[in-house]
Amino acid sequence: MRIGVLTGGGDCPGLNAVIRAIVRTGYYEYHDEVIGIRDGFAGLIRNRTHPLDMNRVSGIMPRGGTILGASNRDNPFDYAEHGNGGMTTTDVSDTVVENYHKNKLDCLIVIGGDGTLDIAHKFIAKGLNIIGIPKTIDNDLNATEVTFGFDTAVGTVVDALDKLHTTAESHHRIMVVEVMGRYAGWIAVASGIGGGAHIILIPEIPFDIDKIVQKIYERKGRGRHFTVIVVAEGATPAGGEMIVKRTVEGAPETMRLGGIGEQVATELEKLTNIEARCTVLGHIQRGGTPSAFDRILATRYGSAAVALAHEGKFDHMVALHSADIVPMPLSEALHKMKRVDLNGSHIKTVRMTGISFGD
Amino acid sequence: MRIGVLTGGGDCPGLNAVIRAIVRTGYYEYHDEVIGIRDGFAGLIRNRTHPLDMNRVSGIMPRGGTILGASNRDNPFDYAEHGNGGMTTTDVSDTVVENYHKNKLDCLIVIGGDGTLDIAHKFIAKGLNIIGIPKTIDNDLNATEVTFGFDTAVGTVVDALDKLHTTAESHHRIMVVEVMGRYAGWIAVASGIGGGAHIILIPEIPFDIDKIVQKIYERKGRGRHFTVIVVAEGATPAGGEMIVKRTVEGAPETMRLGGIGEQVATELEKLTNIEARCTVLGHIQRGGTPSAFDRILATRYGSAAVALAHEGKFDHMVALHSADIVPMPLSEALHKMKRVDLNGSHIKTVRMTGISFGD
Amino acid sequence: MRIGVLTGGGDCPGLNAVIRAIVRTGYYEYHDEVIGIRDGFAGLIRNRTHPLDMNRVSGIMPRGGTILGASNRDNPFDYAEHGNGGMTTTDVSDTVVENYHKNKLDCLIVIGGDGTLDIAHKFIAKGLNIIGIPKTIDNDLNATEVTFGFDTAVGTVVDALDKLHTTAESHHRIMVVEVMGRYAGWIAVASGIGGGAHIILIPEIPFDIDKIVQKIYERKGRGRHFTVIVVAEGATPAGGEMIVKRTVEGAPETMRLGGIGEQVATELEKLTNIEARCTVLGHIQRGGTPSAFDRILATRYGSAAVALAHEGKFDHMVALHSADIVPMPLSEALHKMKRVDLNGSHIKTVRMTGISFGD
Amino acid sequence: MRIGVLTGGGDCPGLNAVIRAIVRTGYYEYHDEVIGIRDGFAGLIRNRTHPLDMNRVSGIMPRGGTILGASNRDNPFDYAEHGNGGMTTTDVSDTVVENYHKNKLDCLIVIGGDGTLDIAHKFIAKGLNIIGIPKTIDNDLNATEVTFGFDTAVGTVVDALDKLHTTAESHHRIMVVEVMGRYAGWIAVASGIGGGAHIILIPEIPFDIDKIVQKIYERKGRGRHFTVIVVAEGATPAGGEMIVKRTVEGAPETMRLGGIGEQVATELEKLTNIEARCTVLGHIQRGGTPSAFDRILATRYGSAAVALAHEGKFDHMVALHSADIVPMPLSEALHKMKRVDLNGSHIKTVRMTGISFGD
Repeated sequence: MRIGVLTGGGDCPGLNAVIRAIVRTGYYEYHDEVIGIRDGFAGLIRNRTHPLDMNRVSGIMPRGGTILGASNRDNPFDYAEHGNGGMTTTDVSDTVVENYHKNKLDCLIVIGGDGTLDIAHKFIAKGLNIIGIPKTIDNDLNATEVTFGFDTAVGTVVDALDKLHTTAESHHRIMVVEVMGRYAGWIAVASGIGGGAHIILIPEIPFDIDKIVQKIYERKGRGRHFTVIVVAEGATPAGGEMIVKRTVEGAPETMRLGGIGEQVATELEKLTNIEARCTVLGHIQRGGTPSAFDRILATRYGSAAVALAHEGKFDHMVALHSADIVPMPLSEALHKMKRVDLNGSHIKTVRMTGISFGD
Repeated sequence: MRIGVLTGGGDCPGLNAVIRAIVRTGYYEYHDEVIGIRDGFAGLIRNRTHPLDMNRVSGIMPRGGTILGASNRDNPFDYAEHGNGGMTTTDVSDTVVENYHKNKLDCLIVIGGDGTLDIAHKFIAKGLNIIGIPKTIDNDLNATEVTFGFDTAVGTVVDALDKLHTTAESHHRIMVVEVMGRYAGWIAVASGIGGGAHIILIPEIPFDIDKIVQKIYERKGRGRHFTVIVVAEGATPAGGEMIVKRTVEGAPETMRLGGIGEQVATELEKLTNIEARCTVLGHIQRGGTPSAFDRILATRYGSAAVALAHEGKFDHMVALHSADIVPMPLSEALHKMKRVDLNGSHIKTVRMTGISFGD
Repeated sequence: MRIGVLTGGGDCPGLNAVIRAIVRTGYYEYHDEVIGIRDGFAGLIRNRTHPLDMNRVSGIMPRGGTILGASNRDNPFDYAEHGNGGMTTTDVSDTVVENYHKNKLDCLIVIGGDGTLDIAHKFIAKGLNIIGIPKTIDNDLNATEVTFGFDTAVGTVVDALDKLHTTAESHHRIMVVEVMGRYAGWIAVASGIGGGAHIILIPEIPFDIDKIVQKIYERKGRGRHFTVIVVAEGATPAGGEMIVKRTVEGAPETMRLGGIGEQVATELEKLTNIEARCTVLGHIQRGGTPSAFDRILATRYGSAAVALAHEGKFDHMVALHSADIVPMPLSEALHKMKRVDLNGSHIKTVRMTGISFGD
Repeated sequence: MRIGVLTGGGDCPGLNAVIRAIVRTGYYEYHDEVIGIRDGFAGLIRNRTHPLDMNRVSGIMPRGGTILGASNRDNPFDYAEHGNGGMTTTDVSDTVVENYHKNKLDCLIVIGGDGTLDIAHKFIAKGLNIIGIPKTIDNDLNATEVTFGFDTAVGTVVDALDKLHTTAESHHRIMVVEVMGRYAGWIAVASGIGGGAHIILIPEIPFDIDKIVQKIYERKGRGRHFTVIVVAEGATPAGGEMIVKRTVEGAPETMRLGGIGEQVATELEKLTNIEARCTVLGHIQRGGTPSAFDRILATRYGSAAVALAHEGKFDHMVALHSADIVPMPLSEALHKMKRVDLNGSHIKTVRMTGISFGD
């Protein structure tokens, strides 16, 4: 077979391990040819492709990023073009179909999140053979138990928490760390448990700033003059209002000034008179060498996707269920977000070990 | 309740996270008192115990080892004592029972491998309330899907493989890494996939040195003048014979001279005339700060064990099943080793991505 | 001798290694008694001290923070007290002298930055025997070639830059990392070279935003659609004006909103239309296990300080000169900041390898 | 200029940073062309070269190994060839000169250890323009204060010692770690200080096994039931005799069976009846991503070497002296090994902090 591969959406440690596994499985098991497509669907719009052979994927597993490049902007069904009259959007999906055939592809493996896989799914109707590989660093996809990248991101946050712990303790400070998780608090919960946080704020549980202060004082009463707080970027106070209002002159609207972490830190310093500092980890969570766990999962996904292609099970994505990689129809997998289960085992562990959700 | 805790057997990253979770869950959820027992069952033979309060477990999660000490030698039912007439063994299990009561324990949480849990199970008949927490760095316990420590060990091996990869490639060498796994090849398989090994040798699949040579030449034919091999310490050649015989004068019998890794390296250098080097990772795999994954799993185990104690579900151990922590009768859990399933998903991934088992 | 030890000022990886070396050298070489003083000079104001024996310092070298606690607020000559009538400051330096004698100290080793050492120096006039150990994570002390903590901080930044590099490259982004360095750009320069930054902005060289844009376009012209920028927190544009003005309602004055890194990122996104992201590493740079280099230097400092005490060379601090640890009079060492030498070897390397200072 | 670059000898973290700096300095500062030569001098014997442009060196700094390949076997003045009549050696140095000219090189930058630089120096007499860059992971070159790779190797050993420390402590063991250093004990001394070893054995100080036992008992007397020992591979007992003799049947002579580390462990277990384990780190010390320190030093070396070429200062190598990179005539630099100075500052620190050299 001639198999095309593209990566779409935000960065996620393990992408190169997936690509490598696809090429190796194609080479060793099926004698496939694998074609790399540049920068997500953009590569099929502008026909930028190149063969992916064994040499090309040698040594890439430990590297972050994706050797194919990615883009989370280019939707062929609603493609933005900048011309004289400003930005217009057109449907260039037929160009994608054309280039798919021009490259003589028998199948297209799309590695992406919900958005990218949704686009991919639409090409089934246009006759393309699509296999999906789920990718979300937030681990918020319902269709699979766990996704690659998440373990690495949690490891990066835990490493940061270890570093902040000792300095918080020595200097009697409140340390706030803002982590990824706009709609689901998985990274915050996992890294909070693993990094020994005292308070974890997540989108699923609106917080009450007074309960946080109460926890800080409970600790102080036991002689613990420092507190480490993990805040998911999507966490919000119970009333739904931002704590500290701000106006920013001259800043473009997309600018992200002072997220929830900074606001919580500011408010807590005011309320407790204890020095509070905020660190925003940002894209560091998406970068770096993938953990062993993520490399293995990514390799299993990549390898299973090629097998699926040879079974002709198109319009499916690979998913992890009870330690096995299984196919899952894209139509069932899409648009189902997995939020942190408030009655689940992780939440129970958090509460039983005395970590506060600020509720 | 007054809960005693002991750790037994070999070292395993995550032990301190378990202890910490027990103390915190006892403190926050049940207002228990937790008593630490020194050096495994030895602490109940010689009555060396001390209270474990919140201060004592503060900051221990990132640390390797166990703050309680451990011993894999002292079996109270068959206790070795050194006297004038040489070593004799006696049954001191009643002393253990006595000290259990002297410390007013309501329950004893035993963190240990198959051997330690087997000893613990025998104390049920003597009236002690026992809860087990499984511990095996080799991940070879059938009763639970995964155990803490394993992920950290695999991470350490993968890190070593990353380092050896670049030097192997630059210098056209065969690099052999001997890893833990006397009876089950889990660490070798997982780290081999994650570390990009070209050949993985495990106890479950006897290897043929000529097949290894063949793989090295296949690589050479593609211009890849180096090969990275992971060898589980329990791997053996198909015939069952050691490859290189050796006589060691004056060495005590317990001395471990030149394991299978060294032998494979020596033999391959002879057969291929390519420089081969062997690294034996040894106890480095058991040390160091536990990975985020292991800290979380260990915390969940510790917390669930205390809950089990309060439910009165003694003679059980905690186990991971499909993302949940469940109780499992010790009698069912013991003596069931989980070897690498030759038809399982991991083995399939290895073969499909062109990694050789030397068979 | 009876030697008191205190740590003052901000956190710095290696503090525990210094303390450990002092105790060990006291124990093995001189049979000293070492007394730990809690939370900097505060411990001599409130007489909070405890013996530091070999057990107390066992295993502390790899840990961040300081086992003694620190404070950068309490100046005994100008001590802030909060009473009914608001905050007043008094001179409690005689209490310090009193407690020094109450603890029967023969000498006080003060580990601290310029501010803390300045306070220490003043106690010479009051009859105390003072030895200083320099501590500045910014490496901006003229009296010594290099200080512990700096290497660890640079390592943390380089690690972050490695992670951002791959994601910047895959996603065609500008990545800005704000690092420590209010007055001296050492961390930015060292981590920028080591982390492969394309642009480094430091306090010593005012930058021109257009020159930065120019560099980004030079790279784009060579097909490099991403740029990594390290910004010292004290970097300023040539005109001295902040780029983006902001008004923040309701925020306390001490709040640090949007530092220079965020401003540079915002401005560059506006000027180039390339997505720009900023990460502020903050206190992560001060935490974590010290690097081997810092542990060794810290151990040498601690050991040499005890030797100095026994030679009676008080009012001196230890300093590194040409690979040797030498005594340096405190009066000469203080108030001399070492900024990045614009004609020095590091700057030359930056310019020759095509990294831009934005000038 | 057209500048050729080759790397020779054993692996050393930082080689790619040197190569990258040469290419970047050539590109940005001098508009040079840089030509990469494959596998050390072998590439000039067999004329295997390729241009090194900016794209080729993009992203290589964090990677171990050398993108050029290396060989420590091929000496053009004494070149081994395998023919029908067995191995013969011939002088192919004129072929090297020929290929130097065929590639129109104006200068050849040789990155290598004493052996490789000695070969390079001989080509001066044959009219080649040679610049040397010193490379020794053991840091045993007298001509320069410090060499890249050493800091990374020490960091790897310290990381291993941290891991072994906790497991040694929990399990009351003697842990022996054998590290590089055949003739000079720099790695053992530095990592022993930084990793908190209790005993350090180096080639410069013959050890007495009874003194080691004595140290173990001194520790035991203080309740410390574990000991961590770092052994340089070239360490020898005072009498000069190996402790445990061995005969190995059928092994090739070059095989390294049971080094000094294993022997010391075996002997100590016999003498103290405490379990002793040995880990041989081997090539792991040479691999992996270079530390920030090594990347910076390597970049400075590479950049300065190109400047030297443009100054026409051939037959020199770059060297670090008091924080500056200076030229040093090859004739003066060669054949001068820097062993650990027994009266130096490092040794003093070791002795004062109670670490034993076993003497």
